[in-house]
Amino acid sequence: MDNRYCIILAGGSGSRLWPVSKVNLPKQFLEVADTGKTFIQHTFERFCSFIDPGHIFVVTLPRYKNLVREQVPDIPEENILLEPYSRNTAPCIAFSAIKIYKKNPDAVIAVTPSDHIIQDVAAFRANLVSAIDFAAHQDALVTLGVSPTRPDPNYGYIQAAGGRDALKKGEPLKVKTFTEKPNVEIARVFIGSGEFVWNSGIFVWKAKTILDEMAKHLPMLFGWFDGWEEAVDTPAEQDWLRRAYGGCERASIDFGIMEKTDKAWVYPADFDWADVGAWESMYNYASKGLDDQGNVVLSHHKIVEDSKNLMAVCTDKEKLVIIKGLDNYLVVDTDDVLMICPRSDKDIHRLVSDVAMPEYEKFR
Amino acid sequence: MDNRYCIILAGGSGSRLWPVSKVNLPKQFLEVADTGKTFIQHTFERFCSFIDPGHIFVVTLPRYKNLVREQVPDIPEENILLEPYSRNTAPCIAFSAIKIYKKNPDAVIAVTPSDHIIQDVAAFRANLVSAIDFAAHQDALVTLGVSPTRPDPNYGYIQAAGGRDALKKGEPLKVKTFTEKPNVEIARVFIGSGEFVWNSGIFVWKAKTILDEMAKHLPMLFGWFDGWEEAVDTPAEQDWLRRAYGGCERASIDFGIMEKTDKAWVYPADFDWADVGAWESMYNYASKGLDDQGNVVLSHHKIVEDSKNLMAVCTDKEKLVIIKGLDNYLVVDTDDVLMICPRSDKDIHRLVSDVAMPEYEKFR
Repeated sequence: MDNRYCIILAGGSGSRLWPVSKVNLPKQFLEVADTGKTFIQHTFERFCSFIDPGHIFVVTLPRYKNLVREQVPDIPEENILLEPYSRNTAPCIAFSAIKIYKKNPDAVIAVTPSDHIIQDVAAFRANLVSAIDFAAHQDALVTLGVSPTRPDPNYGYIQAAGGRDALKKGEPLKVKTFTEKPNVEIARVFIGSGEFVWNSGIFVWKAKTILDEMAKHLPMLFGWFDGWEEAVDTPAEQDWLRRAYGGCERASIDFGIMEKTDKAWVYPADFDWADVGAWESMYNYASKGLDDQGNVVLSHHKIVEDSKNLMAVCTDKEKLVIIKGLDNYLVVDTDDVLMICPRSDKDIHRLVSDVAMPEYEKFR
Repeated sequence: MDNRYCIILAGGSGSRLWPVSKVNLPKQFLEVADTGKTFIQHTFERFCSFIDPGHIFVVTLPRYKNLVREQVPDIPEENILLEPYSRNTAPCIAFSAIKIYKKNPDAVIAVTPSDHIIQDVAAFRANLVSAIDFAAHQDALVTLGVSPTRPDPNYGYIQAAGGRDALKKGEPLKVKTFTEKPNVEIARVFIGSGEFVWNSGIFVWKAKTILDEMAKHLPMLFGWFDGWEEAVDTPAEQDWLRRAYGGCERASIDFGIMEKTDKAWVYPADFDWADVGAWESMYNYASKGLDDQGNVVLSHHKIVEDSKNLMAVCTDKEKLVIIKGLDNYLVVDTDDVLMICPRSDKDIHRLVSDVAMPEYEKFR
């Protein structure tokens, strides 16, 4: 019997790529620049060559259920797990791990975000198969660690035990420290030391191991899920689930478990990886195809003059984009929003997406 | 019998407000900023209170016939005169004056562009009624002259005979000189002298007078219209018209007649007037409603920060426009084009609208 399982986390409704991503169409359901497939479709495809689609689960919110069904129809409907509310990753992983554990107590689960970019699918497959094999044979909470290519202050960093030389061997190592979003200077020191990797947010563990660690490190939260043995996969499941989510607090798997457990391991991965979490990282990702002035214009028809380091995105790619004289600007044009601002500006869109202004509700 | 007639010139397909105005939707059929009516609708309404709609004619090209019928349904279909080709204003006025003269040899005609902005409708009416009355009683080619408010280098200037004091009286004066688009310094001298007015492009004359002057000053061109007495308003009209337009050269009424005739008069008008012929003049016109930083944003929802002297237009006025950090820029957003360039830039759109680039044909 195949014990490999996958949980795709697809409940996020982040606004960092607003106005292209929106509450009703968050990033995981958007096309990855010019590939013809969405983030969640790429995520599914990376796994389905070594994990049976019947063993791939998606955890999301009710409002995204139809998007999941449309975009990844090969995932059985009963594998689409719906959270009653957003409670961050710890409750989400508790719920889905319980669901899988009840089906197969020997399950080994790969947990993955649905909105990251990974291009080297062959390396990904080899790394994941190996990490799953490793986790199957011991009580380990394994994080896939990616070789950093720049001192990016927006990522999480993992220091591996054993130092630079151990990391080079490519074998799983115990985690020494986690550091979320250091400043650029510290990130530079991390990278220089050779002991750090980026936290990809991809985890591998046995269902039993993660549930045991939940009970140990988040006993209050996990207590709300009591009674699952009787409720899950019965008509009582919905009531049980609403009670659990209604009661439990918000908590992330990183802070709630990974930074507390003594079972944290890091698996040094060979694949490329990008969390295109904001327009700046989209620029970094897309800049492979830029012109010699550093301009990235994601539209089929464009005339760009006297401009440098421009990031321009039209959701209607047939639109003609004419830009002259913009230096380090971000231009985003969607059906209902046109945003033009300096790339360095990180705040202007929060006026619309975060602040309570009823006038702008419809644009969120 | 009422001898008052009007000819609305609506055949232009200018690209100066591109990409909002296009070959298939030129300026005269676009809404005047926030008024809910198009340029040609405003033009019609200015005249229909003192000229019977049955006496109002529109001269245009076949491709705009349906737009005219939709936008000014009160003009009888038989009053929509279709030119086979664009040949500038002289042939256009010859054709339409002939049509009217054949119906009424005593007709006095007001000729008007269809894409100008005039807001003081009461003054307009009083001036036009008076000018028509004047022209009815002598062989005069009357141009309405508007008091200049700035040394605009994009307009035509008329020097009235009799000097500053004569002009102040508001009575018709013979024309001394015409000057088309002087530079700013010369325009400033003109205005300082008090002897000059702007050429509004609105003319008033008897049908007989303009046809006589055509025969005198543009005999070659007018010769192509020979035979009109037999052809017009008969089944032979189409053949006659195609022959006339096929043969005659391009000529403007200003250079071809007004600058040559000894019957040119100027009527000093009291109404405001703007030929919003390019984005710069649209900015000048719209700037009445601008904020204290000189920003004009024609959209209902807007957030503008750190910007000055911005001109932004969304054809979809429900779109949210967010702009930060633009100084003296023009932003125009339509269904299929997004243009962002310095306001001082006059050339970038010509890449698309004028230069022969088949790739951009569909955006013209």
